[in-house]
Amino acid sequence: MDVRRYVEEHRDEFVAALKEWAAIPSVSADPGHHGDVRKSAGWLRDHLAAAGFPTVEIWESGGMPAVFAEWPAADPGAPTVLVYGHHDVQPARVADGWDTEPFVPEERGDRLIGRGTSDDKGQVLFHALGVRAGLAASGADAPPVTVRMLVEGEEESGSPNFADLLERNRDRLACDVVVISDTTMWSADVPSMCVGMRGLTDCEIVLTGPETDVHSGSFGGAVPNPARAMADLLSALHDGDGRVAVPGFYDGVAEISAEERDLIARLPFDEAEWLATAGSSAASGEAGYSTLERIWVRPTAEINGMWSGHTGAGTKTIVPHSAHAKVSFRLVPGQEPAHVQERVRAFVAERVPAGLGVRVEFGGPGVRACASDIASPAVRAARSAMERAFGTEVLFTREGGSGPEADIADVLGAPLVFVAVGLDDDRIHAPNEKVEIPLLLKGAESAAYLWERLGSQGPPAG
Amino acid sequence: MDVRRYVEEHRDEFVAALKEWAAIPSVSADPGHHGDVRKSAGWLRDHLAAAGFPTVEIWESGGMPAVFAEWPAADPGAPTVLVYGHHDVQPARVADGWDTEPFVPEERGDRLIGRGTSDDKGQVLFHALGVRAGLAASGADAPPVTVRMLVEGEEESGSPNFADLLERNRDRLACDVVVISDTTMWSADVPSMCVGMRGLTDCEIVLTGPETDVHSGSFGGAVPNPARAMADLLSALHDGDGRVAVPGFYDGVAEISAEERDLIARLPFDEAEWLATAGSSAASGEAGYSTLERIWVRPTAEINGMWSGHTGAGTKTIVPHSAHAKVSFRLVPGQEPAHVQERVRAFVAERVPAGLGVRVEFGGPGVRACASDIASPAVRAARSAMERAFGTEVLFTREGGSGPEADIADVLGAPLVFVAVGLDDDRIHAPNEKVEIPLLLKGAESAAYLWERLGSQGPPAG
Ligand SMILES: [Zn+2]
Ligand SMILES: [Zn+2]
Repeated sequence: MDVRRYVEEHRDEFVAALKEWAAIPSVSADPGHHGDVRKSAGWLRDHLAAAGFPTVEIWESGGMPAVFAEWPAADPGAPTVLVYGHHDVQPARVADGWDTEPFVPEERGDRLIGRGTSDDKGQVLFHALGVRAGLAASGADAPPVTVRMLVEGEEESGSPNFADLLERNRDRLACDVVVISDTTMWSADVPSMCVGMRGLTDCEIVLTGPETDVHSGSFGGAVPNPARAMADLLSALHDGDGRVAVPGFYDGVAEISAEERDLIARLPFDEAEWLATAGSSAASGEAGYSTLERIWVRPTAEINGMWSGHTGAGTKTIVPHSAHAKVSFRLVPGQEPAHVQERVRAFVAERVPAGLGVRVEFGGPGVRACASDIASPAVRAARSAMERAFGTEVLFTREGGSGPEADIADVLGAPLVFVAVGLDDDRIHAPNEKVEIPLLLKGAESAAYLWERLGSQGPPAG
Repeated sequence: MDVRRYVEEHRDEFVAALKEWAAIPSVSADPGHHGDVRKSAGWLRDHLAAAGFPTVEIWESGGMPAVFAEWPAADPGAPTVLVYGHHDVQPARVADGWDTEPFVPEERGDRLIGRGTSDDKGQVLFHALGVRAGLAASGADAPPVTVRMLVEGEEESGSPNFADLLERNRDRLACDVVVISDTTMWSADVPSMCVGMRGLTDCEIVLTGPETDVHSGSFGGAVPNPARAMADLLSALHDGDGRVAVPGFYDGVAEISAEERDLIARLPFDEAEWLATAGSSAASGEAGYSTLERIWVRPTAEINGMWSGHTGAGTKTIVPHSAHAKVSFRLVPGQEPAHVQERVRAFVAERVPAGLGVRVEFGGPGVRACASDIASPAVRAARSAMERAFGTEVLFTREGGSGPEADIADVLGAPLVFVAVGLDDDRIHAPNEKVEIPLLLKGAESAAYLWERLGSQGPPAG
């Protein structure tokens, strides 16, 4: 029995389990679904225990729980790997534009459609299959490395309690390599490995004007309108070149090197196809950078939502009493979220017209950007494991997404390696999220090969 | 029996009727309430018929129905007056900040709280009481002038079918004076008469970007964000001096004269008190004009509402697929709504970034501003009728609100007189709308005195 055959023979069982798990609407951002997030943690605990992990625990975090699992290597000198993923998901409602019920996963040929199938339940679950496949292939009853898994429950809410969870459990999480399974590949045909992720900090800005909505016939044009002030504020976030105009926002950001630009330019990027994936008809952004540079190595400010006044049918001639905006900032290495938050607060405070109240509420401390070293043994091992699984060269990419990866690397002092098989057109965070089942199986294979390779490399140097 | 005593003795009956009528949620802007608008028209028809109007009809308009009533003078040579008001109301939901159910009118001392109590049901209803009081005082069985009433059902939706209704019924609406009862007075202690109203045109602007919301980690900063484009667009609506920056917007607008400025400056305006009424902590607007000038004689652009992307709890890191804004423009004499609409469309079209779709939908043809001539016999008669009712001098004001008054004056070729008793702090178009019952009774008295005075002036000259 080799790894590939084991994985393929267990396809249906794997998909059935993923469907069961993805049916739990573990939306961490919605307090109404916090019971489901707990249910999701319980499901994963049971699944990993059934897969054979000798230790499986639910870890309370102060917010939504994480799941920790451990399967020690037979050889006490073998390296330890820590797999990171998350079991919470983005909000999803049919009204957002789903063609199916988002929490009734539907299999269509090689695809599984449903919230969380790609981000991140499918990618967490392939590890359980991978470790079983490795054991089946080796005939051993323990993996060639000590496999630890930490699957958090608040990633889609900005991981507000995760750094603390890491600190408190630093000893039990100690490892030689961190494997992150929450990213995407270049395409189904061009497997690749992420080597950097932008960070994130996000806020809600609230401007308040009249105590209630007031008639614009009686007051319009003579009292400050919070919707207009919000438009001015949001418009001022960027300059004419598409750069973020918040003073100090770029502090610590290094210009990208010619080498980086070359590496990015080498990729077979088809802008028209990428735009089709976005469903957008034009690329636009910071002047002087290519599209891949804009989404991989440049920081941004993005309006994720805004609302004010009358948003229903018909006309309501009012000066709204408040205006709200949700704005997120993507960060690159060198940017400190706390510094960006402070600069954004100052920027907003300076621009609020007299007569309006203002609040800026950040969703948490934010997450720093992270990157992994292409020349490191861990990245080399992961790359060749993926090449074995996919049977072709694996390229390097960056990722627009963000998570608590920088915290993990910092707290645990271990290098990051990204082994993941999502696709950009998986529509994560959007309606009709799906995952390619064959790629999840390749993910399971890759993990099994990686444990084998890291185990045979023996104990880490130092 | 004199007019005042009749009115006061019928107070409770009047309030009971108004409570019944205001309980009908005749929100013309909401198709879900169109049945209620029809119910409201039927209620008024029955009420006016019971008051003694020999002719009462429901007039279909293509949209929501108007109510027409007529009570001919005994003397066929007496002048004819046409009273204009409306029976539809602004939207209202408890969630907007009401302390009571908006459509369960509640009497508290001298106040009646509920949507439409001031705007405009209370002010329509005092005419039924006024005409009865006049008959009781004179002992006649017909009023001293022919009283026609036209109470429309789409004023709060911009009166889209009203000009057409006027044209079709031009003969039956022929009159010597139009009395508008849909405005406010300076204050409860300082009765006044409106002599001008701004016009209005309003639109919804829709910008569309990606086909659906897309993940801002994967696409943010590299495709145009419709929320950001909307902020840019809305921010560009005004220049740094608070002037509307739409080229051509001010075409036809005359600068106000020194005389007008003086007339406005004579009023006992307490800006701090006015701000308290608005619940706003600062005045702001077009540079070079006072607050009263800004709301009375200067045109404006106002954002009444906007929405885009994620507006619920928590974080959703997306590039929204669309952004919406509701914008209304207050117009002054000299501005043609059609011209303003064309200039706004051009302004928006020029500013939409590549890759975004755009729609600008105006709520109807808009309404021109109107004014009445202070020196005319009709204004003089109305002023002294109000002075008799209130027992004090009546001043002149303008009104920030707008309605189809300009169309009425144009189509019927008759001068406008504003006889109305609302207050700026009635919170029309806002939560907790109320009306002062004693002022409605003064309105009824004023109407009775005005019919008497116009009747004794005899047939109009010419
Ligand atoms: Zn994820
Ligand atoms: Zn009104």
